[in-house]
Amino acid sequence: MSLVVQKYGGSSVADAEGIKRVAKRIVDAKKNGHQVVVVVSAMGDTTDELIDLAGQVSPIPAGREFDMLLTAGERIAMALLAMAIKNLGHEAQSFTGSQAGVITDSVHNKARIIDVTPGRIRDSIDEGNIAIVAGFQGVSQEGKNITTLGRGGSDTTAVALAAALDAEVCEIYTDVDGVFTADPRVVKKARKIDWISFEDMLELASSGSKVLLHRCVEYARRYNIPIHVRSSFSGLQGTWVSNEPKQGDRKVEQAIISGVAHDTSEAKITVVGVPDKPGEAASIFRAIADAEVNIDMVVQNVSAASTGLTDISFTLPKAEGRRAIDALEKTRSSVGFDSLRYDDQIAKISLVGAGMKTNPGVTATFFEALSDAGVNIELISTSEIRISVVTRADDVTEAVRAVHTAFGLDSDTDEAVVYGGTGR
Amino acid sequence: MSLVVQKYGGSSVADAEGIKRVAKRIVDAKKNGHQVVVVVSAMGDTTDELIDLAGQVSPIPAGREFDMLLTAGERIAMALLAMAIKNLGHEAQSFTGSQAGVITDSVHNKARIIDVTPGRIRDSIDEGNIAIVAGFQGVSQEGKNITTLGRGGSDTTAVALAAALDAEVCEIYTDVDGVFTADPRVVKKARKIDWISFEDMLELASSGSKVLLHRCVEYARRYNIPIHVRSSFSGLQGTWVSNEPKQGDRKVEQAIISGVAHDTSEAKITVVGVPDKPGEAASIFRAIADAEVNIDMVVQNVSAASTGLTDISFTLPKAEGRRAIDALEKTRSSVGFDSLRYDDQIAKISLVGAGMKTNPGVTATFFEALSDAGVNIELISTSEIRISVVTRADDVTEAVRAVHTAFGLDSDTDEAVVYGGTGR
Repeated sequence: MSLVVQKYGGSSVADAEGIKRVAKRIVDAKKNGHQVVVVVSAMGDTTDELIDLAGQVSPIPAGREFDMLLTAGERIAMALLAMAIKNLGHEAQSFTGSQAGVITDSVHNKARIIDVTPGRIRDSIDEGNIAIVAGFQGVSQEGKNITTLGRGGSDTTAVALAAALDAEVCEIYTDVDGVFTADPRVVKKARKIDWISFEDMLELASSGSKVLLHRCVEYARRYNIPIHVRSSFSGLQGTWVSNEPKQGDRKVEQAIISGVAHDTSEAKITVVGVPDKPGEAASIFRAIADAEVNIDMVVQNVSAASTGLTDISFTLPKAEGRRAIDALEKTRSSVGFDSLRYDDQIAKISLVGAGMKTNPGVTATFFEALSDAGVNIELISTSEIRISVVTRADDVTEAVRAVHTAFGLDSDTDEAVVYGGTGR
Repeated sequence: MSLVVQKYGGSSVADAEGIKRVAKRIVDAKKNGHQVVVVVSAMGDTTDELIDLAGQVSPIPAGREFDMLLTAGERIAMALLAMAIKNLGHEAQSFTGSQAGVITDSVHNKARIIDVTPGRIRDSIDEGNIAIVAGFQGVSQEGKNITTLGRGGSDTTAVALAAALDAEVCEIYTDVDGVFTADPRVVKKARKIDWISFEDMLELASSGSKVLLHRCVEYARRYNIPIHVRSSFSGLQGTWVSNEPKQGDRKVEQAIISGVAHDTSEAKITVVGVPDKPGEAASIFRAIADAEVNIDMVVQNVSAASTGLTDISFTLPKAEGRRAIDALEKTRSSVGFDSLRYDDQIAKISLVGAGMKTNPGVTATFFEALSDAGVNIELISTSEIRISVVTRADDVTEAVRAVHTAFGLDSDTDEAVVYGGTGR
């Protein structure tokens, strides 16, 4: 009997009606002859409400107790889901991350899974039950304390359980129909992708696509667990993410370009007038690293021969801008740069596809499309299967649409149909 | 260093302000040189809200999953409380019932504690932390499933932990100042009791006093753990419940009468015209027991010589009335009684005090007081240290006040001052 792991996000179980709808879908999978393990997130806004409560009692709600608090959210959702399944005449048992054997390190609020020992889950499904597991949480190997996995943690729980149980597939249910060639809110003609490789999905995830987080895809790739991203509101096939298309589904060929991603959450810092000599860039980025700022793109032009000075630009999350500027100002005299420029009105647009490795015209087509749309390029950065540019934030919609059309990604229909719930 | 267990109920931690107030009180106890273990209930209406959600997804929300659901409530409260304490500069760690070693049987929704192995709690407080423990919950010895202890479970958790840790005292914080000689909402001149014996407290609890539940007092008596019931809203001394008054507090003599309790939650069933022969009463109460109805008072008068028939009356929770009547109707032909009378407009008034054993006038004074107040007595039942009567529900206020005055329990002030929060 094949084993399926299903994961339902908070918007799918936002209220009693949602829980009952999801319960029915789970029972259908069981009736179709699968063993079913379900990973569930906290209902709707529960986590935000708990974070708000924590803020009211203490301005520094971090660490062990914060994890203890947040894990109450999944506990509520999973117990209700098990009840709803029992009410449909099927047996279900819910398990905390700890009971499910999700063993993590001791880094509270963003723990990493280091082992999964799903003995209780295996026993439960072998007895004929549907097992419901709390997403986002685990227990630390040392100290046996409750931990949480940080943002997107429930997806990671699902993939990790699927790997440990050798599941046939990990189905990630969400409020959109799958992964699209661009954000359907921006590009009306965006198409749902039927299949995408792990590598392309990883690049999309790190370029601003929100459907799957990088961490979860990385885990699935490592253990070669196929992911099926689909809507909990429709019965449609979603997007398969795997090493290669399913047997018998060879008609799904790898496209040259998988999709266009955009990201408006970053800012750009330019360090102006850096002496062009060894060690200068190292000093700058050591200061940034010591301030625990995560940087993304880094660009340095050749220096002007007349001055021997160069400019170094990089992008980073807007929320970390203040910290980065403060850290850099402290190094001004030792590094000897002229000034700092901070710009948070930028957008990053990325074109992703393994096919670009063997199609030399891709870069040219990309830049031409932007140029024809009157979009100015401020920074460029590339990897083997991705090209990213930084533009003005105001240009992002125009730029994404132009690139999407230029690479023939537009669907034949006028508007992407998304069977979403909350319209997120 | 002496160890104190404190328990805070849901009304004391109903919101962020309440949690911060309670945190301050806990820190004060720590500053006074105690090791402190805190048991906390779910915030305010959390449990009712979770029960409501469960009802929305399934009409039969019982068993294992219901316990998993409800225990989320204490988890939220204890994590927030630990954060609030940390914010005051003291170290705190929260523990689930399972982590605290509260081992129960496997009867979900009303599990009984069968062992407490508080190794992690002991370690935590020996390291200088304040330990916060989730009330109301444990883990089953067999199956390692999450269980809840049923109504009043958090008080029982506190007493059980106090016993296992050999605590000096178990402080039960609530929204009233302690145990009163009568319900202060009914008797304005009710006095707070400074000290009461376990035995008298047990009788008050089973006669309708809501401050402490019978089960918790029974546990404390078995392990000889003094309970101090007090308000979390004031700094006043409350009521001590123990085997005997504290050393150096001998001025607190045992009163003849501890208090007057009343209960309007019961109904009365009279089985009319029962043949007065061996086995009839047994048949009736076997039928009641098989229907899992809990009965309280039972009264049978001598039979009328002319008919050889007698009447049997008993009281029971109103909620179980329908079930009892159905069960009795099925035995009508075999038992051969004439008819059933059901009456839910009754009140039970009880006078409790070990002193009545050696004061023969108590019963007479009790009945005279009721008679003078024009209150008719319908049933009478006595134990060694308690007299209970059933009256019309309409008479309860008048009856309780009259008895309270007759036994000299009225305070000198005009109105009982209760430093309560919600005025429950």
